[in-house]
Amino acid sequence: MKGLWLENKQLQLRTDIPIPEAPPGEALVRVRTAGICNTDLELLRGYYPYTGILGHEFVGVVAQGPENLVNKRVVGEINAVCGKCRFCRSGQPTHCENRTVLGIVNRNGAFADYLCLPIENLHPVPDNVPTEVATFTEPIAAALEIQQQIPLSVNQRVLVVGDGKLGQLVAQTLALTGCDLLAVGRHRDKLANLEARGIKTGFAEAVTDRAFDVSIECTGNPEGFAIARRALRPRGTLILKSTYAGNLSLDVSSLVVDEITLIGSRCGPFPAALDLLAAEKVDVQPLIHATYPLSDALAAFEQAQRKGVMKVLLEIS
Amino acid sequence: MKGLWLENKQLQLRTDIPIPEAPPGEALVRVRTAGICNTDLELLRGYYPYTGILGHEFVGVVAQGPENLVNKRVVGEINAVCGKCRFCRSGQPTHCENRTVLGIVNRNGAFADYLCLPIENLHPVPDNVPTEVATFTEPIAAALEIQQQIPLSVNQRVLVVGDGKLGQLVAQTLALTGCDLLAVGRHRDKLANLEARGIKTGFAEAVTDRAFDVSIECTGNPEGFAIARRALRPRGTLILKSTYAGNLSLDVSSLVVDEITLIGSRCGPFPAALDLLAAEKVDVQPLIHATYPLSDALAAFEQAQRKGVMKVLLEIS
Repeated sequence: MKGLWLENKQLQLRTDIPIPEAPPGEALVRVRTAGICNTDLELLRGYYPYTGILGHEFVGVVAQGPENLVNKRVVGEINAVCGKCRFCRSGQPTHCENRTVLGIVNRNGAFADYLCLPIENLHPVPDNVPTEVATFTEPIAAALEIQQQIPLSVNQRVLVVGDGKLGQLVAQTLALTGCDLLAVGRHRDKLANLEARGIKTGFAEAVTDRAFDVSIECTGNPEGFAIARRALRPRGTLILKSTYAGNLSLDVSSLVVDEITLIGSRCGPFPAALDLLAAEKVDVQPLIHATYPLSDALAAFEQAQRKGVMKVLLEIS
Repeated sequence: MKGLWLENKQLQLRTDIPIPEAPPGEALVRVRTAGICNTDLELLRGYYPYTGILGHEFVGVVAQGPENLVNKRVVGEINAVCGKCRFCRSGQPTHCENRTVLGIVNRNGAFADYLCLPIENLHPVPDNVPTEVATFTEPIAAALEIQQQIPLSVNQRVLVVGDGKLGQLVAQTLALTGCDLLAVGRHRDKLANLEARGIKTGFAEAVTDRAFDVSIECTGNPEGFAIARRALRPRGTLILKSTYAGNLSLDVSSLVVDEITLIGSRCGPFPAALDLLAAEKVDVQPLIHATYPLSDALAAFEQAQRKGVMKVLLEIS
């Protein structure tokens, strides 16, 4: 089968990869559409060691698996877990000590004709959700993780820093809580997407110091972190939603004096994300920059790496 | 009156300071004993700008003030607050936007014959608590702040990093919660103080990676932070109890992947601290390294800056 292979910071479109055999408990999924995520770009830059097929945001159709799923459109949670370790047993499977992660850690990913995932990872896509829209299930779930970690209430002042793919989804999902939301970024056109949904937006200059209860850092760069930090009132909470290239230099003493809380935030709930898409409460269409066939995956990656480009999708089958 | 004056990173024992006049709402307190804290040493090194009399840990006797307090031994909360700003009104006076802080921010401190503090900051010292013991009220309150910020339960695995003054008080107060506690440091004799109270101790090598629910960083150095970080299980909480010289370089991506929470922690509840001292649930005697008269304050500071030295007290009246 075809697959986009990463090895030693090099991408290679291979056609010689055998179709995988689903081990017991797993299903074989024929991939239809997959999205290129910043994590894929970071893996390509070598931030984390990984060799294999990239890709973890996808919609597919079950080719082999339980009867009730075969021929159904599905999305899949990316952490394949052991079910036995202390984290699995304590209801925190995304932190399984023995996990593999689709297209990220020791498990071939979604930029290929087929992938395998544990059956329990798969969620049918509601009929009214278009395939390209459902491809955003994973990042929307990641955005919803914030609401699993801290209680958000109406009129709490919340700042989203970053108007890229992740910031857009974070802002849209947070807006549903009724919190007093401001989203800031560097791109007038991207902020306009959010304004069209009734979300207050601005550039960094619009951020009042020490005024927000919660800030969400979605840029992955030190400038974004600095904005999210200065925006917080004492005892405020800064959610780290992005990963960073290398270390960040932090004024930790000021965190102590202001008793700030920092919370790292990763994968979230798929069912809730699918519910939002089915109810059309999140609009992902403006986020789709371009769609390429898998055979043009290298061009798709070049495009995805350009400044200001939002989501690039791969159409696979 | 005599007072230990800080100006341009220079300490000066002055004898020409006028006895302050207590403004309305404040009391005049004759200082009896005061403790030298790491924050005093940091102010001396110029980490924060401050000019005036140093010192914020003290026991004194009320010289002028309300009748029920005059001639009583008191300790004093260090933040003098406005009572009107959004933080005061929301029950978070230690974060008052207009606060002055005894011997730290725009308010002369305790290394002097007299000080002034708002009447509501003062707490009578229970009769059975010796004066030198009560001098530890402020740092014990700061240690208790941890328990105000996160719920701690029996059998939760908690690590205290640092066996200095602060680490000792943090470990002793945390031990009272019944949590499964390990305190680590670099000094066999200091750890022995904690062992004598039934607290498990060890060197850094005793810390199992990814095994603790909560870790408390009490060293103020990057090595201590690294131990507190690696000790945490995914979704664990790292409490920052120390301030740091300059910035700290952090692997923020790993905080995201492991969904770690960092919480800065500063001033805590005085009444609870006094209750613990009155009930003899915290033992501060082994922490007292030496006591100097105020006239030898410069020598006391030299001593306090030596490696491995615990609490140095100034006897003032």
